[in-house]
Amino acid sequence: MDPSSRGHARITLLTDFGTADGYVAAMRGVIASLAPDAIVDDASHEIERGDIEAGAWVLSHYWRVYPAGTIHVAVVDPGVGTERRGLVATSEGRTFVAPDNGILTRVLELSGESVVREIRERAFTRQEVSATFHGRDVFAPAAAHLSLGISPDRFGPLVADPVRLALARPQRSGSSARGDIVHIDRFGNLITNIPASWASPEHRFRVKGTEGIPFRETYGHASPRELFALVGSAGTVEISVRDGSAANRLAAGRGTVVLLDAGHG
Amino acid sequence: MDPSSRGHARITLLTDFGTADGYVAAMRGVIASLAPDAIVDDASHEIERGDIEAGAWVLSHYWRVYPAGTIHVAVVDPGVGTERRGLVATSEGRTFVAPDNGILTRVLELSGESVVREIRERAFTRQEVSATFHGRDVFAPAAAHLSLGISPDRFGPLVADPVRLALARPQRSGSSARGDIVHIDRFGNLITNIPASWASPEHRFRVKGTEGIPFRETYGHASPRELFALVGSAGTVEISVRDGSAANRLAAGRGTVVLLDAGHG
Amino acid sequence: MDPSSRGHARITLLTDFGTADGYVAAMRGVIASLAPDAIVDDASHEIERGDIEAGAWVLSHYWRVYPAGTIHVAVVDPGVGTERRGLVATSEGRTFVAPDNGILTRVLELSGESVVREIRERAFTRQEVSATFHGRDVFAPAAAHLSLGISPDRFGPLVADPVRLALARPQRSGSSARGDIVHIDRFGNLITNIPASWASPEHRFRVKGTEGIPFRETYGHASPRELFALVGSAGTVEISVRDGSAANRLAAGRGTVVLLDAGHG
Repeated sequence: MDPSSRGHARITLLTDFGTADGYVAAMRGVIASLAPDAIVDDASHEIERGDIEAGAWVLSHYWRVYPAGTIHVAVVDPGVGTERRGLVATSEGRTFVAPDNGILTRVLELSGESVVREIRERAFTRQEVSATFHGRDVFAPAAAHLSLGISPDRFGPLVADPVRLALARPQRSGSSARGDIVHIDRFGNLITNIPASWASPEHRFRVKGTEGIPFRETYGHASPRELFALVGSAGTVEISVRDGSAANRLAAGRGTVVLLDAGHG
Repeated sequence: MDPSSRGHARITLLTDFGTADGYVAAMRGVIASLAPDAIVDDASHEIERGDIEAGAWVLSHYWRVYPAGTIHVAVVDPGVGTERRGLVATSEGRTFVAPDNGILTRVLELSGESVVREIRERAFTRQEVSATFHGRDVFAPAAAHLSLGISPDRFGPLVADPVRLALARPQRSGSSARGDIVHIDRFGNLITNIPASWASPEHRFRVKGTEGIPFRETYGHASPRELFALVGSAGTVEISVRDGSAANRLAAGRGTVVLLDAGHG
Repeated sequence: MDPSSRGHARITLLTDFGTADGYVAAMRGVIASLAPDAIVDDASHEIERGDIEAGAWVLSHYWRVYPAGTIHVAVVDPGVGTERRGLVATSEGRTFVAPDNGILTRVLELSGESVVREIRERAFTRQEVSATFHGRDVFAPAAAHLSLGISPDRFGPLVADPVRLALARPQRSGSSARGDIVHIDRFGNLITNIPASWASPEHRFRVKGTEGIPFRETYGHASPRELFALVGSAGTVEISVRDGSAANRLAAGRGTVVLLDAGHG
C-alpha cells in the first residue's frame, strides 16, 4: 500500500472528539484489530464541536505534506445518524475518509482529479453500526480496510456532487484587495485567504476599524506587541500581534473582512 | 506476544496527567528503552485529576475494541505512595496494568474470567521507584516487560479482592425504569447505565425537574436544540441536546437519576 | 541508527503549538515523507505559548528516560523568522533539534559532553522555508534526516555559545537552604530546584507568608487538603496539596522563593 514504508500504511485521524472520553481510543482500537500494522497519527482531536469549516481548514494544512499513500480520516460529523453519506475520496495519491458534509471542500478545491465514492458496502463497516459514532463504526474500519489494500471502488458508487462549503473568495482590484479571515489559530493569528503574492511591504491592511496595519517580512521585523501582517505557513496573509493575540486585539473572527491597500507611507 | 502484528505488542496509556508536563513522555521513554518495538497508543491523558470513576468508564469504552494481546495501562492514581497495591490483570486476552483503586471495576464486572495479580517483583520496576510517579516507575515498566512476553504470573501473588467501585445499578419495574448518569462527555451528553434494550420510542424520560424527554432513533430525528434521549455508542441510553450540551441544559452530573416511563403520547 | 529497534529511529516532538490547528500534523507529515520508518512520539504540545523556560523544564523530565539514539525535537520558538540560529546538539547519545533560544539549557547543564552545531545546510530543510513555521520547514526535516543516519556534522558549524537561560540556583547554609519554584505542573504542584538530598522529615518549608510546611515521605503520609513538601519525580523537593493545588493555595508561581529550615517540632 505504502511502498516507501515496508508495507506499513499510514492513517491520520482528525476529529472534534477531544481525548477525554476514549472515543479516539475506540477508533484506534478498531484499526488495531483490523490492520495491526497500520501506523496511526493523531492529526487533531481539538476541532471545535461540529465546526466543519475549521476541520476543512486544518485538514488543508497537512494532507499534502504527508506522502502519497496516506489515508486521511476526518470526522467532524454533526449529522451522524442522519441520511448524510459517508465518503471515500482519492486525490493526488492520498485517500480521504469522511462524512459528506463539506469537510473535504478544500481538498477537492485544490485537486481537479479527485474521485469520490459513497461508503455503502457493509462488509467494510463494523458489524453493528451505532446511531452516534460512525468514527468508530464506519470511518475507522473503512480506513483500516483501505490500508490493507481494499480498493476505494469496492466501497460504493461514485458521488458526483459531494457537499461543498461555500468558501469566501478574495478579490483584487488594482493594488487593492479584499479578503476574509478563514481560520484563527491557537496563537490568535488571523489567517486570511489573501495569497502571499498579492501582498508586499508597500501594502497596508485594514481590519474592522483598524487601519494602516503594516506588512512585515517576519515576526522579527515587528516591534513587541505590534499588530502587523505577514505571510503565514499556509502561504496566505496572516494578521498577527507579536507576543499577543490579533484575534483578541481586533475582536475579529472567521469571516471578518480584511482589506489591503497600497500604503500611504 | 501479539501474533497478528508481527511481534509488535501494543500498549495503550490512560492517565490523568495531561500532556503539558512531560509525564506521559517519561512513561513512553521508559517503554521505548525496555521494549523498543512495542506500539504505544495514547488512549486519554485528560481524565479529571484523580477521577477514578471517569477513568473506569473511559477504559470500558475501548478496551474490548482493541485486539486480544493488547496491554492496557490505566493510571489515575491519587493514592500513589500509599500502601495501595499495583495490579496486573488479564481478562478476555487483554492485560491490564493499574493501581488497585477501582479503575478496573468495569473490566472486572464484564468479564467473569479475570485473573488479578499484585505487582511485587522489583525486577520489573525501575531501579529507583519515586514516591509520586508510579506511572513511570512501576506501571510503564510492567507494561514493557509484559509486552516482551514476561508472564503475569511472575509479577506477584494472586489478588482475590481487587478494589471495586460501587457502581450504580439501573432498576426496572414494568415499563418504568430508573437509572443513573454514569459519565458526561465532552459534548455534554449524559450517558446513563440504562441498557438500550429497555428503551423505545414509546418511552419518555425524566431528569431532575424536566419531564417528557422523548426518545429519538438518531440525532437526525431530533429538532435543533431539542433535548432528547437516544442509544449512545456504549450501548446505553444517553440524554443529549442536538447541537448543545444536555449537561448544561439540565445542570445534571454524574449520579443524577434518570427515570424512564411509558410515554403519554 | 537505533540498533535496539530494528532500524526504526525514534523522534519525540515538544512544541507550544497545541493540536487544534494541524501544525503538529504538518511536522509529522514532513517526517513521514522523508523517514517513513521513524517512530514519532508526541512529548508535549501544550507548553504555554513562547514559554521557553517551561519547555526546557519539561524536556529535562523525559529526554534521558528515552534510550540512546533518540532524536528529541523541541520547538518553542517565539523568535522564528529572526536571526536566531537553529541547532542540532548531541549529548549522552541523544540528539536534539531546537531553536537556539535556551530551550536546551537544562540538557546542556546536565551533560558536560554536548556538541552543538548550527543548522545551515539547506539540503536538510524543506525547499521553501516559511517565515513563521520552522517546526515544519527546518526542525522536522532535520530530525527526519538525522533519523536516516545523516551525521550532525553535516548540518553546519560548531556553536560554542548556545543561548542559555539564567537558571536559578538553590543555596545551602548549614541546615537551611533557599531555592526557587522552577515549574508548576497540571496538578498545581510547585516543583523546586532544591535537591532531594537536602531535605528530610526534620525540615520545615516556607513559601511566601506560609511557614512550617512539613515534609512528608509520600502523599499517603499527608492529611487530606494538607499543604506539605515531598520529593517529586524529578528528584527535587515539591510543594503539594493533597487532592488540591499548592499553586492556588499559595498564589505562588515560577520564581517564587522556597525556604527550608530545621524544623521547630
